[in-house]
Amino acid sequence: VYDKVIRRLEEWGLSVKDAHRKYGFVIEGFEVIDNDAGLAPGMMGEVDGKKILILPGPPRELESVLDKVLDRIAGPVSERSLTRRIKTFGLRETEIYELLNPLRDVLEPLGYYPSIYGVEIEIRASGDPGEAEEELHFKEEKIREVLGDNVYGVDGDTLEAVLGRILREKKLTLATAESCTGGLVGNLITDVPGSSDYYLGGVVAYHNDVKMKLLGVSEATLREFGAVSEPTARQMAEGVRKLIGADVGLSTTGIAGPTGGTPEKPVGLVYMAVAMEGKTRVIKRIFRGNRLEVKKQSAYTVIDLARREILSVKNE
Amino acid sequence: VYDKVIRRLEEWGLSVKDAHRKYGFVIEGFEVIDNDAGLAPGMMGEVDGKKILILPGPPRELESVLDKVLDRIAGPVSERSLTRRIKTFGLRETEIYELLNPLRDVLEPLGYYPSIYGVEIEIRASGDPGEAEEELHFKEEKIREVLGDNVYGVDGDTLEAVLGRILREKKLTLATAESCTGGLVGNLITDVPGSSDYYLGGVVAYHNDVKMKLLGVSEATLREFGAVSEPTARQMAEGVRKLIGADVGLSTTGIAGPTGGTPEKPVGLVYMAVAMEGKTRVIKRIFRGNRLEVKKQSAYTVIDLARREILSVKNE
Repeated sequence: VYDKVIRRLEEWGLSVKDAHRKYGFVIEGFEVIDNDAGLAPGMMGEVDGKKILILPGPPRELESVLDKVLDRIAGPVSERSLTRRIKTFGLRETEIYELLNPLRDVLEPLGYYPSIYGVEIEIRASGDPGEAEEELHFKEEKIREVLGDNVYGVDGDTLEAVLGRILREKKLTLATAESCTGGLVGNLITDVPGSSDYYLGGVVAYHNDVKMKLLGVSEATLREFGAVSEPTARQMAEGVRKLIGADVGLSTTGIAGPTGGTPEKPVGLVYMAVAMEGKTRVIKRIFRGNRLEVKKQSAYTVIDLARREILSVKNE
Repeated sequence: VYDKVIRRLEEWGLSVKDAHRKYGFVIEGFEVIDNDAGLAPGMMGEVDGKKILILPGPPRELESVLDKVLDRIAGPVSERSLTRRIKTFGLRETEIYELLNPLRDVLEPLGYYPSIYGVEIEIRASGDPGEAEEELHFKEEKIREVLGDNVYGVDGDTLEAVLGRILREKKLTLATAESCTGGLVGNLITDVPGSSDYYLGGVVAYHNDVKMKLLGVSEATLREFGAVSEPTARQMAEGVRKLIGADVGLSTTGIAGPTGGTPEKPVGLVYMAVAMEGKTRVIKRIFRGNRLEVKKQSAYTVIDLARREILSVKNE
């Protein structure tokens, strides 16, 4: 085991130190499980009739080791029930509950998982894998019929990956103009592998000078309506679309807090816009939560808005 | 309890639905603990001599309820030992271990917590609160002497907040030019409340056209050295500093993966630069890990580089 640690360190171009010795310790009678992502190996064995699995701490190293033994510690596939997460954005948990209530007998067992990324609905089916898969498919279709384009995907799908898929399909390019989100929208979009195919870039326009100079927001607009306003969001989205030469421009401008709010413009007030050829859509929201939560909700809401806008143009 | 739920919904401008009834259920004999952040209340009681605490699921609601009872379920302060996390960036766990080993007798008990944000060193002291505080202070000073400016803060400090504090003290403004990080640097910097005092904004230059058109990276540089190169990183940092009119310009350009790597320029290769008046510093790293991990390491490394560069100018 220790030889492997030394080889790994040499591959990484690091020198071997005394502190690395501990990675070579192994419990007698335990099986060693390779850790492809780091130095500390996993171990599995039995003590007093109890199975013991020892995993490294860092999450990706833990995953690397766990993946290798999961089949041996979990039951066979046929005994397990299948689940699917139907992912929605734009409706509250209670709204979804009311909408799906008439179908309750068909859909149960049903779980609701609300978060800042929207509400996930978990459906479940057991029995023969083929039949269970068919049952899940049937349930999913029923939910999609009722919830429409509030459903953006299933399981591992994310809003940013789904938007990317739509942009790629429609051969559209994207640019972002961010004020209150400070770069979070661009960051989420570029978390998706291959996003350089459709995402050209953008501007973080935190200071008003940047909004004016780079995005062409007019001084009169900022004076009359303020930076957090419908016309500013509109001009930012249209401005970045033109500046970068993209098909679609997104923008966010708002008050993330904790300070900066007024009675007319409270903390959490955010305007978001999507500009496309000949059409700009602006929405206003008042988000609850702390600074980071307001940023996240703004970012996901504008990504979702872009998804809806592009899909609606497609269907027109 | 249910009346409170109804009042909260009215405050939020939402209608009361059947689905909200469940928030009114309370276990007989249990104490209700208010949830200031949501609808589902907490509950605390005893069954068969065992204390039971019921918490809402969403993390901020859980925190809101837990904060109210923490003092009653934790032991008194005098019995607890004090701990402090000394936060470092730029050294590996094994390097820190070797450096601190001679001081082991003075510093123990000692814990190392490595992550993508650097290595945290936990020191501990117990006994009378005043003496324990003094002991922690003594240990912290010893560690700072040995590790120098690799220590960026303690406990709740983050790299982005510490950079912000330094910029504010020195009355300097900041702009960002991001390629491989896609907006993450701006996002981290704007996670800090009040960052609009020193952060003006920036450019996400994902496509080479944006690097040329907005940041002034020369076509010859891109042709000869490529987008992921020392001169491109340099021109991006200097370009955004000039474009935005800031005192300090940061840049990142690299290959986040999973594809796009070559034998000469592998996935994980990233150049990062910090441009200040009359001086630009560029560093090269090859990060391990997946796409998101390469982005995160790039972002924290360039924020840390800016921190070191500004501090070193101050001391010149």
